[in-house]
Amino acid sequence: MNQDRRDRLRDAAVAVLAGAGGRGLTHRAVDAAAGVPPGTAKNYFPSRDTLLRAVAERCLERYRELAGALAAAGSGPSDRAGLAALLAGLLRDVAGPGRPRMLAYQELRAEAGRRPWLAGLLDPIDAADFAVYGGLLAGAGLPSGAGYARTLTLALHGVIPHLLAGSPQTLAASGLDDLDGFARDLLDRVCGEETP
Amino acid sequence: MNQDRRDRLRDAAVAVLAGAGGRGLTHRAVDAAAGVPPGTAKNYFPSRDTLLRAVAERCLERYRELAGALAAAGSGPSDRAGLAALLAGLLRDVAGPGRPRMLAYQELRAEAGRRPWLAGLLDPIDAADFAVYGGLLAGAGLPSGAGYARTLTLALHGVIPHLLAGSPQTLAASGLDDLDGFARDLLDRVCGEETP
Repeated sequence: MNQDRRDRLRDAAVAVLAGAGGRGLTHRAVDAAAGVPPGTAKNYFPSRDTLLRAVAERCLERYRELAGALAAAGSGPSDRAGLAALLAGLLRDVAGPGRPRMLAYQELRAEAGRRPWLAGLLDPIDAADFAVYGGLLAGAGLPSGAGYARTLTLALHGVIPHLLAGSPQTLAASGLDDLDGFARDLLDRVCGEETP
Repeated sequence: MNQDRRDRLRDAAVAVLAGAGGRGLTHRAVDAAAGVPPGTAKNYFPSRDTLLRAVAERCLERYRELAGALAAAGSGPSDRAGLAALLAGLLRDVAGPGRPRMLAYQELRAEAGRRPWLAGLLDPIDAADFAVYGGLLAGAGLPSGAGYARTLTLALHGVIPHLLAGSPQTLAASGLDDLDGFARDLLDRVCGEETP
């Protein structure tokens, strides 16, 4: 087993799940997306469940890279405006370059409802987010107790499907048609407005 | 075409999508779940897209019934404690009797990423929620401007996949292991704490 090829197949599986959904995730489609001979994906990931696991593990690795970068000591924003800019940047990523990864994650979530082992893999990713955003609030000098971190994290989780769908009425109703304004307002609502 | 049978097939399609996911949504599975002769679902809903549309329309009808009940003049809670109890009840429904409907909706969302017509059907459901929760905030005498309604609505949207997954670490990290306490705290965070 070749590690480079394995990584290429995993990235291809993420792309296939994002683009074609759970129904489209087949070994044949992954071979084609990775540009490898037919049968290769089946050699590395013999069942559909091992393919799903490969996608989940790849998403978990990417999450750890991102969360690690956000949580690195002293690297986070030190004030409210900086944190708002960081949140707006994360949301722009979801709607832009990070879209395939987030679409694949959305599919994994749906599949996890029928697969306890997959729910078990996603649980630590979801749970860790609450600590990451709590840390960012604290670093920016904002209230960061459990209730604050939860509300911020859940609102951000709630945003993701709307950004992925990109539907005009919902974007307007949620304020997500202006990501910078949205992020500032979200911090005002969750943490209270700045006292002048 | 018989309207009762059509409704029965639509409910069966919701149940199949919830239980077996997008991959499992076939005419044959819907016939079996509805207890009708093979070929019946195909008569009513000739393609897979018309099956998906039937599920989406059924979810939209159920949403309108629920939202209509919530929005009926004077029927909403008139104070913060009453609204917290109503929100906790809605979340208990998501984790309980409403689970199949919400799982089906989660699958529709994933499918909508690849089907603009389906995204167009779901958009008004998602968008309407912001007005419903804004109305509930106003009825309870709480701040109900756009930013308040958005934050509450998005946090509630963010809760749903975690309740459906029911994963222990995430439920603990999000405070969702105590739905009554969660709902009270969410209103305190979004609207500010009560001044005594």
